[in-house]
Amino acid sequence: MPGPTPNLKPYQHAKAGAKPARFDLDKVSPQAKPYSSGDKAADKAAVETLARELDELQNLFYADRRFKLLVVLQGTDTSGKDGTLRGVFGQMSALGVHTVAWKAPTEPERARDYLWRIHQQVPANGEVTVFNRSHYEDVLVPGVNKWITPAQVKERYAHINDFERMLTETGTVVVKFMLHISKDEQRKRLQERLDDPTKRWKFSAGDLEVRKQWKQYQRAYADAISATGTPWAPWTVVPADSKTHRNLMIASVMKQVFESLKLRYPPDDASLKNLKVV
Amino acid sequence: MPGPTPNLKPYQHAKAGAKPARFDLDKVSPQAKPYSSGDKAADKAAVETLARELDELQNLFYADRRFKLLVVLQGTDTSGKDGTLRGVFGQMSALGVHTVAWKAPTEPERARDYLWRIHQQVPANGEVTVFNRSHYEDVLVPGVNKWITPAQVKERYAHINDFERMLTETGTVVVKFMLHISKDEQRKRLQERLDDPTKRWKFSAGDLEVRKQWKQYQRAYADAISATGTPWAPWTVVPADSKTHRNLMIASVMKQVFESLKLRYPPDDASLKNLKVV
Repeated sequence: MPGPTPNLKPYQHAKAGAKPARFDLDKVSPQAKPYSSGDKAADKAAVETLARELDELQNLFYADRRFKLLVVLQGTDTSGKDGTLRGVFGQMSALGVHTVAWKAPTEPERARDYLWRIHQQVPANGEVTVFNRSHYEDVLVPGVNKWITPAQVKERYAHINDFERMLTETGTVVVKFMLHISKDEQRKRLQERLDDPTKRWKFSAGDLEVRKQWKQYQRAYADAISATGTPWAPWTVVPADSKTHRNLMIASVMKQVFESLKLRYPPDDASLKNLKVV
Repeated sequence: MPGPTPNLKPYQHAKAGAKPARFDLDKVSPQAKPYSSGDKAADKAAVETLARELDELQNLFYADRRFKLLVVLQGTDTSGKDGTLRGVFGQMSALGVHTVAWKAPTEPERARDYLWRIHQQVPANGEVTVFNRSHYEDVLVPGVNKWITPAQVKERYAHINDFERMLTETGTVVVKFMLHISKDEQRKRLQERLDDPTKRWKFSAGDLEVRKQWKQYQRAYADAISATGTPWAPWTVVPADSKTHRNLMIASVMKQVFESLKLRYPPDDASLKNLKVV
């Protein structure tokens, strides 16, 4: 039987509601730091404190078992998805946290609907699953490259809304982050990858091809947020030119999400009450 | 990329349309034989001919690879789901036809949404998958036993409609059969299972418990057909007191389904044109 519906109120979302207006990504500055104290050292210390708190909250979430938690990290190359995993989720126990890094679909995956492989990886009760890229790539990439028509893009976002709604109504909390960096910040980070032998393995020539489509991808991201920023699965757009701010903001939102669930340890078994271990 | 949308017109469906009226199962006689020639021997011969034709059509379907085909067999105990698999689908090649017999969900399955295990088993391009029982059991059984509320029953049928729509829009043809037998016919068949040592293994005491809920299940089936008889995934209610008629009707509908797809062998590779095997 499914757990109770979380009834998470939309928070920090870019756009919610049944008839979403067009979301304008250009209005969000990648350099903004809405969660910052103004002091970098203090922000860094806050991230560390939050990461430890998240570890405790995730442990409680695992014990509680009433909910499942799916976190989606989207963003262009070098936007900081891996860094978020390390900085925000890195202290949680591997027992209850799984990450899935999505790549181009394989032959058997392409022979089914594009949500087939996604659905297989959704979290079980008590589990946290973090998607590094996600089902959104199955609309963004073919959409930008015109492998599918605008009508198909719309159709897929309807499928995704239905899918995420079903997950929510069967006890999954769906939290989606869009890591938003500037084109200039990406240039710096790609150059850094090229220049640093310990980071060069992360660079691929394909990254430069994708970078040429910067405007198209920015528009596609705005479309995705407009189409799928729903009350049950809202987007949080994260200004991410500052890595510290990015982690601070995501960790803060994650803490809010856990706290909104009113987590509790399962009720004590009455038979344990006067039990003595001898 | 998904295949083209099949655009299968509704046919033989119990009830279709966005605002389905209440479907009245009592109006369909389990003894009816709308597909019969009136001569039992001729009907039996026709089933055998159809089963051979279906084998050829499935081979073409497998070669074509543009579509996926999901067949759902629902019906109460002894309604003839196993007999349909043998009589109608039994001559098709195991290469492209898979059957899944759904049982009560396991622990890991219950820890996810109820469509999780179902989605894993959907057919790939060119494949036919036949569900012996299905995701409908995840509404019928908990609904009749009041483990879920009427509102949750409604919610689940909305999920199922969304899910089947997504499958259809990504190239899956969804065909659903409800095998309809009378309470008296079930009595005979259950007694036969008890009396025949070669059939006794199919009998379980639980069958009699479910039989006590006959009326509730009939009502629940009518509700399911009303709620999920959609243009993209219509139900065919099959009068099934006669096993020969049941197979004749299902085989005839399956033939119609295959023929409606305008199947064809993949286009010849031009380089093969003047190739000689030496």
